[in-house]
Amino acid sequence: MNDDKKNNKDTGNGPGLIQKDHITIIAGPCAIESHQQLEKTAKIVSDLGLSYLRGGAYKPRTSPYSFQGLEEKGLQFLKEIGQKYSLKTVTEVTDTVNASIVAENADVIQIGTRNMSNFALLKKVGEIAFKKKKAVILKRGWASTIKEWLLASEYLLINGEVEVILCERGIRTFDTNTRFTLDLSAVPVIRKLSKLPIIIDPSHAMGQSDLVTPMSRAAIAAGADGLIVETHYDPTSALCDGQQSLDPKEMAELLKQIKIIASAIGKKVR
Amino acid sequence: MNDDKKNNKDTGNGPGLIQKDHITIIAGPCAIESHQQLEKTAKIVSDLGLSYLRGGAYKPRTSPYSFQGLEEKGLQFLKEIGQKYSLKTVTEVTDTVNASIVAENADVIQIGTRNMSNFALLKKVGEIAFKKKKAVILKRGWASTIKEWLLASEYLLINGEVEVILCERGIRTFDTNTRFTLDLSAVPVIRKLSKLPIIIDPSHAMGQSDLVTPMSRAAIAAGADGLIVETHYDPTSALCDGQQSLDPKEMAELLKQIKIIASAIGKKVR
Amino acid sequence: MNDDKKNNKDTGNGPGLIQKDHITIIAGPCAIESHQQLEKTAKIVSDLGLSYLRGGAYKPRTSPYSFQGLEEKGLQFLKEIGQKYSLKTVTEVTDTVNASIVAENADVIQIGTRNMSNFALLKKVGEIAFKKKKAVILKRGWASTIKEWLLASEYLLINGEVEVILCERGIRTFDTNTRFTLDLSAVPVIRKLSKLPIIIDPSHAMGQSDLVTPMSRAAIAAGADGLIVETHYDPTSALCDGQQSLDPKEMAELLKQIKIIASAIGKKVR
Amino acid sequence: MNDDKKNNKDTGNGPGLIQKDHITIIAGPCAIESHQQLEKTAKIVSDLGLSYLRGGAYKPRTSPYSFQGLEEKGLQFLKEIGQKYSLKTVTEVTDTVNASIVAENADVIQIGTRNMSNFALLKKVGEIAFKKKKAVILKRGWASTIKEWLLASEYLLINGEVEVILCERGIRTFDTNTRFTLDLSAVPVIRKLSKLPIIIDPSHAMGQSDLVTPMSRAAIAAGADGLIVETHYDPTSALCDGQQSLDPKEMAELLKQIKIIASAIGKKVR
Repeated sequence: MNDDKKNNKDTGNGPGLIQKDHITIIAGPCAIESHQQLEKTAKIVSDLGLSYLRGGAYKPRTSPYSFQGLEEKGLQFLKEIGQKYSLKTVTEVTDTVNASIVAENADVIQIGTRNMSNFALLKKVGEIAFKKKKAVILKRGWASTIKEWLLASEYLLINGEVEVILCERGIRTFDTNTRFTLDLSAVPVIRKLSKLPIIIDPSHAMGQSDLVTPMSRAAIAAGADGLIVETHYDPTSALCDGQQSLDPKEMAELLKQIKIIASAIGKKVR
Repeated sequence: MNDDKKNNKDTGNGPGLIQKDHITIIAGPCAIESHQQLEKTAKIVSDLGLSYLRGGAYKPRTSPYSFQGLEEKGLQFLKEIGQKYSLKTVTEVTDTVNASIVAENADVIQIGTRNMSNFALLKKVGEIAFKKKKAVILKRGWASTIKEWLLASEYLLINGEVEVILCERGIRTFDTNTRFTLDLSAVPVIRKLSKLPIIIDPSHAMGQSDLVTPMSRAAIAAGADGLIVETHYDPTSALCDGQQSLDPKEMAELLKQIKIIASAIGKKVR
Repeated sequence: MNDDKKNNKDTGNGPGLIQKDHITIIAGPCAIESHQQLEKTAKIVSDLGLSYLRGGAYKPRTSPYSFQGLEEKGLQFLKEIGQKYSLKTVTEVTDTVNASIVAENADVIQIGTRNMSNFALLKKVGEIAFKKKKAVILKRGWASTIKEWLLASEYLLINGEVEVILCERGIRTFDTNTRFTLDLSAVPVIRKLSKLPIIIDPSHAMGQSDLVTPMSRAAIAAGADGLIVETHYDPTSALCDGQQSLDPKEMAELLKQIKIIASAIGKKVR
Repeated sequence: MNDDKKNNKDTGNGPGLIQKDHITIIAGPCAIESHQQLEKTAKIVSDLGLSYLRGGAYKPRTSPYSFQGLEEKGLQFLKEIGQKYSLKTVTEVTDTVNASIVAENADVIQIGTRNMSNFALLKKVGEIAFKKKKAVILKRGWASTIKEWLLASEYLLINGEVEVILCERGIRTFDTNTRFTLDLSAVPVIRKLSKLPIIIDPSHAMGQSDLVTPMSRAAIAAGADGLIVETHYDPTSALCDGQQSLDPKEMAELLKQIKIIASAIGKKVR
């Protein structure tokens, strides 16, 4: 482990999502549902003083009969609304054929848990992110070992330095009280094995909004570099993942609590 | 459950990989390594009286530094050698952009375990398989529930009737004595829930050649419609998965034992 | 692996539950509920030509508010009815303090999955089984590795040679279609690592009676030495595990199918 | 959920291990190895201002050939040294026959992960703890659901009010980077379902000393009521679990860091 490198979070030539002594919080809806929905949620994220907006345009859904996302139209909304509120944007790519258009419309490209071992996609995204100086969030496959996860990150880096951020989002176990089991030990383990930063997605791991805040506190205390949290101006009307999305009041409370933990360990929240 | 449909194995408009009262055995190397290697192995498969040859041209490898497959050249070898030995061919597709070329060169398109939830790929393959009357083998994700697997198969079927064959290849558990834990209960469970046929891949599940034959016997006794088995004319020289590939003698012994079990339950091996 | 020893099934100084070239089937109710219930079920087991009757007197139940077993009274019923129908008997021990009384009333002492790592119990049972020439069935802990299981068997053997039979009964995984995931690969893996015989409990693994027969066929084809199956003269009235118990007709059908598989691989069913 | 009850931590008639707005830290060696070893470690625990000393006299070891503990002699050392340093004591019980002697020598009786479903032991310990006003720490079975864990706690409570403390210590998953996967989501989940307090054992979950401190911080931030941590005056000489035990300097550093997190959320460390 090279402490120098680790502390600098020198993670390549991207937008600088992770910064030394800061906790970066990415917030926004699971899916971009409409211009109005994204704008209302973006305003909340901006009013809370955060810098990163997430929203899915291409949605990988277990059933083909579930809402599949607004696709290109969603990407346009994201770009426009991100610029209006001065928020950097994060969105998922699900296929090599739309990697370019995603990169044109967002600052950070997300590889979802289902595609962590989709090596064709990793290669393509690595190529585009390198050229266009984008960051890439690589979610851990829900049944991938840490070794497999780090090897997947290598696919993103074979074309040259790319800003890659690992994201732990829960692994599949026998336990059914939460949607997945959040493996926070990934944070100190990754610190030992890699210089890549790591953020936590408590929303998909827990699957229930009332468990998101305590696990977010734990993530920051464990040493994570940031969080990616699902929030929606009105979770009861969400087209997907409403039960795990925070409403504006809950999101403000999460932020308040995270600031307390972050401050205790000498970090600021952005 | 519609017993009539189940017994007819009426699985769409493909080449008819699965036939009533028959066990279909697909055999061949993990990866196509060279013309000579594929031809030598194809001859063994043909001499054993089998009808299906497998071989990977696009290889999804955990590390970007491992052998990645011969790609298009491999597909050409597969097509040519399949025709020469009158063997139908099975190969994996790993990206939407090469789905067409795979379909042009093989009779059966395989979706690997890492791509079971790559919905963009599933949609594309479903479209092409429907048009070109190809069969699709859909491997179970190594941490996918049976419900998720059946919903993934729906992505293949939304364009119209396609011959879809499910393939259990082991799930990830705490146990480390085998590479994965082969979940043979998937066979009777799928019988209850679906009319799709199901075959078993004992090679990837076990990860060791000496465990392949007993688990193949068990698969057939459980009621599986077939097997997909890794075999190589010389496993010690294989570029991937050599330790789990059967050599010609072991493959012949497997076949002999499978015929005994199949015969006991009134089925023939093809 | 010492093939000689393995084939002789020289498993110590017990009643000889496992015999060369034979499949031993142990059948009976989950719990001994009453004299009448046990006798009716014993008659079925005897009429089918089987030699071993199982029935629980001390029941380890997840909830303290569930039926806990008839305890000593149950043991008396088991002994009396076993003698009447010339059936050897199998029952579970759950505490060191009743290890002696269990050994006095049954031929085979079962250690359940929840107690595989209850080392105080293992030591005590090993001591008593050695003295009284009883056999011990050691079920695999539902989240125990094969190495841990074999080390647990060593606790039974430290006092001297004891007839120990391993029993795979399903492991805990993310999958919820069956109660547990039956790990049949344990059969060939144990063959490589140990001379101890191994039987399969498909009832607890599956949790549903209609899945028991296909998985029993698979177990025998994989090479298991026997089965322990829950059967009840009237499963709909059972105080525990009724949904996974076979009724007399289903039990007869299982036996018929097992004989076909056993015969194909040169074994007899007892 | 009755918040009143929860906040009062009214967990029965025991020594009051858990107190409102406090984090209780239990520290000590895995096994009591000698009078000298326990005393040296007790002095460290006492000098750090902690109130609870742990140490195993009966050790459940995977192999019968590993050190099995000093048994009664160890209990005597624990009682004597606890009194000398004014530390309350915690030790594990592994068999019904020694439940009484454990209760006579320690303030808190621990049920280990391997015995969470040893219902005979739970019943006996519940009986004795009730009579003698002892507290009971109930570790979660490494493959037990939260529902099973709470039902196991009911076995301890059927004789009357007992001070029961749940302890999460890691669950078994496919991941091998840590000895077990620490499921910190158990903390907020238990808060929703039960009034019982919950503490965390990071030592057994992680299996490596350098991962213990970050996960301890996370546990406290998640809302846990305390920790049970392995420490040894000289881990390199420990007879068991040396690699996961903190040395005196590391233990002091853990305490320092925990105090920072605890203070941030309005709690004191004891």
